[in-house]
Amino acid sequence: MKFELSNVYQEWLEKMIEQNESLAIQQSLQDIYPADISSVLYEFNAEKSKYVLDLLKKEVSAEIISNLEEDVRKKFLKNFSSTEIASYLDYVDSDDAADILNEQPVLVREEVIAHMTDQEKASHIVDLLRYDEDCAGGLMAKELMVANVNWTVVQCIEEIRRQAEKVEKIYSVYVVNDQGFLLGRVSLKKIILASDQMKIADIYDPDVISVETYRKDDEVAAIMRKYDLEAIPVVNVQRKLLGRITIDDIVDVIAEQAEQDRQLMSGISENVEEHDSVWTVTRSRLPWLIIGMVGGMLGASFIGLFEKDLIIIPAMAFFIPLITATGGNVGIQSSSMVLQTLANKTSLGNGFYERFIKMLLVALVNGVVISALVFIINFIFGQSPQLAIVVSISLFSVVLLSSFMGTFTPIVLNKIKINPALASGPFITTANDIIGLAVYFGTSRLLHSIF
Amino acid sequence: MKFELSNVYQEWLEKMIEQNESLAIQQSLQDIYPADISSVLYEFNAEKSKYVLDLLKKEVSAEIISNLEEDVRKKFLKNFSSTEIASYLDYVDSDDAADILNEQPVLVREEVIAHMTDQEKASHIVDLLRYDEDCAGGLMAKELMVANVNWTVVQCIEEIRRQAEKVEKIYSVYVVNDQGFLLGRVSLKKIILASDQMKIADIYDPDVISVETYRKDDEVAAIMRKYDLEAIPVVNVQRKLLGRITIDDIVDVIAEQAEQDRQLMSGISENVEEHDSVWTVTRSRLPWLIIGMVGGMLGASFIGLFEKDLIIIPAMAFFIPLITATGGNVGIQSSSMVLQTLANKTSLGNGFYERFIKMLLVALVNGVVISALVFIINFIFGQSPQLAIVVSISLFSVVLLSSFMGTFTPIVLNKIKINPALASGPFITTANDIIGLAVYFGTSRLLHSIF
Repeated sequence: MKFELSNVYQEWLEKMIEQNESLAIQQSLQDIYPADISSVLYEFNAEKSKYVLDLLKKEVSAEIISNLEEDVRKKFLKNFSSTEIASYLDYVDSDDAADILNEQPVLVREEVIAHMTDQEKASHIVDLLRYDEDCAGGLMAKELMVANVNWTVVQCIEEIRRQAEKVEKIYSVYVVNDQGFLLGRVSLKKIILASDQMKIADIYDPDVISVETYRKDDEVAAIMRKYDLEAIPVVNVQRKLLGRITIDDIVDVIAEQAEQDRQLMSGISENVEEHDSVWTVTRSRLPWLIIGMVGGMLGASFIGLFEKDLIIIPAMAFFIPLITATGGNVGIQSSSMVLQTLANKTSLGNGFYERFIKMLLVALVNGVVISALVFIINFIFGQSPQLAIVVSISLFSVVLLSSFMGTFTPIVLNKIKINPALASGPFITTANDIIGLAVYFGTSRLLHSIF
Repeated sequence: MKFELSNVYQEWLEKMIEQNESLAIQQSLQDIYPADISSVLYEFNAEKSKYVLDLLKKEVSAEIISNLEEDVRKKFLKNFSSTEIASYLDYVDSDDAADILNEQPVLVREEVIAHMTDQEKASHIVDLLRYDEDCAGGLMAKELMVANVNWTVVQCIEEIRRQAEKVEKIYSVYVVNDQGFLLGRVSLKKIILASDQMKIADIYDPDVISVETYRKDDEVAAIMRKYDLEAIPVVNVQRKLLGRITIDDIVDVIAEQAEQDRQLMSGISENVEEHDSVWTVTRSRLPWLIIGMVGGMLGASFIGLFEKDLIIIPAMAFFIPLITATGGNVGIQSSSMVLQTLANKTSLGNGFYERFIKMLLVALVNGVVISALVFIINFIFGQSPQLAIVVSISLFSVVLLSSFMGTFTPIVLNKIKINPALASGPFITTANDIIGLAVYFGTSRLLHSIF
């Protein structure tokens, strides 16, 4: 059953650590899942955490270390010698081991590899270090079950027996030819149901979806999600089988992607959490606030150009927040719709023309309703008809302009390989504010000269 | 390999449908994955899609239907008779079948169940219809491999053979006692490596994580993600095994949750996409724009109370967008940080006090920097010192207030079981705007009476 972490337990554990009660700690932790122990350790400093880890079985500690978040782990492993790190890596899958090493300084990395006892794993890790973290090569593990197409079922079972300890989860056995090229897959279910002397060639399924090492992580996620795969083999451009990516890593990719998009939309630089230091949090937020501030000051100097108009009609100032807020709301709505389509990488996108027409129609309806309502309210509450007209015409134009900006900014950003979620962030809302002010005061001047 | 969908192919297929070239269509589609055929069908109307589906093998069509999005499928199945729907459901897993039936009117639902040939599946589906869609019971499938703890390995393999056709993906075999209570699991790997006469009792792993039927989908997702599970057994409160949830359904839950949060943050009512009709899109967006509009009008009448001040110092109007934008940016940043913590359901949360102090420190730093910068700029560009002081004091207060609002609104919403992502949406930005204006004009009045 799920272990519910309590603050009481955490406090108890902290006291036990201080009192050096290693036996009590060992007993209390032995039935707890590694993932739950990780959660407890987040609340402790690096020394206390190390004290706990040293009391646990190596494979449990290794799993805990591979569960930790990157930044926490980086700090944490500073207390460990290269030999200690190496001894844990022997129990960690090659993909996680490569991630852990990638966080270390080059010197530590090489020392750790030199200290590893499992030479095969060490060479797997060195292989994996070559790949970017955010591509299929960086996500794959080298641990996988491979069978030669010419083997019999009993040979395949022998191989499973031999590898059983190294490959924790077997979803299917990948079938290759003598040169190691991927031919297909055979499920464990089929192996169980086949008779021993059957050939792999007779039972394997040649219809296997694979990805090349250079594919981006979000592409891999989209493919695995579309075809409901729990694991996907990774091949090089010649279709040589190099590794496999399992769904648990992809679940993390999907969740992190969503997280990153939300942070960009909120004006937070990536990868900050509530428990980070005040300085880290400030550093990630202040630049965006300054961008907004610069925008606000530009807006101020822009309105300054119309000081005379404001002296004549002070009521013009009343509607500034209405204009800027509407622009912001419409812009964010529009870009959010496009973001959703862009996120859905496997479907056919709309063409420019189709999207433009759709956007225009929605904006027209919204613009007409909003500006008509505002006109009626202004009329009832006795604003001058001129001002009421200026406000409503401006609102209508702002809805149209912001829809256009909101719809096409993410598309342009995506084209030039910038995360389109930025289009819903403060940078664009700030731009929208200035556009809104320009439309408002511009319309007022224009109508003033007409009336 | 991945099938890349092209507009050319889609046009060709459309022409073939019009010319009734069923053989050519069958041939062109036979090597294409069902998930890819689904993508093509999204571009066709219901009649054309049905024409294509009728040409395919029943199991392929069934998979395509279960891949379709809810709203599309609902429209689409209106063209099918109850008998036709029933014939597809025989090929669909019970969880997907229940989802499909849930979208149908009650009468159709009962007709379809009556027409199903697989009586066991029909009763499974009826069982599943009882559960809410967004809890573990609504996510689980009844198809799973179960072994009695007293069986031998060879009996277990016999059962796998018997069930092989019904259970597409076997991750592990769940072990139960004579009363059907969940005792543990045994992996296929272990079954392959065990000798035939071994008892399940000797090889099974009693350490199995399960969820009760009433658990919420996001809780299940958090558990599966935390413990890296590819499937999780679902039990009732007595621990009787009822079904299992597979990771592919959970991946969808995670992606949909992220999507829903983003839409709430952007002021879009749930479940709208770019390809929906103008009317649907407008309906989902207009209410939020009207909320923003009402806020803007309230802001306008609020500023109206200070018309005299504006007549004396028209330059006060210049800084309205700066004040409201800063409040909005700070508020969204703060709530986004909290959302992230709330989303991470399995970790220990911060206490009120700790969170308040952290928030206050970050807000103080950001507030001081922003208002100092604005003061310097205003001073250099020759605004009156009084106004410069009013603007900077207001900015500073707005940063503090919006941080507080942004931090605690999502927490309160979460407590009263409302999606906390709402706190980053237009409703709160609108509230922030009004607070900002109140602070700005209030400060000005206050200082005016002091100076």
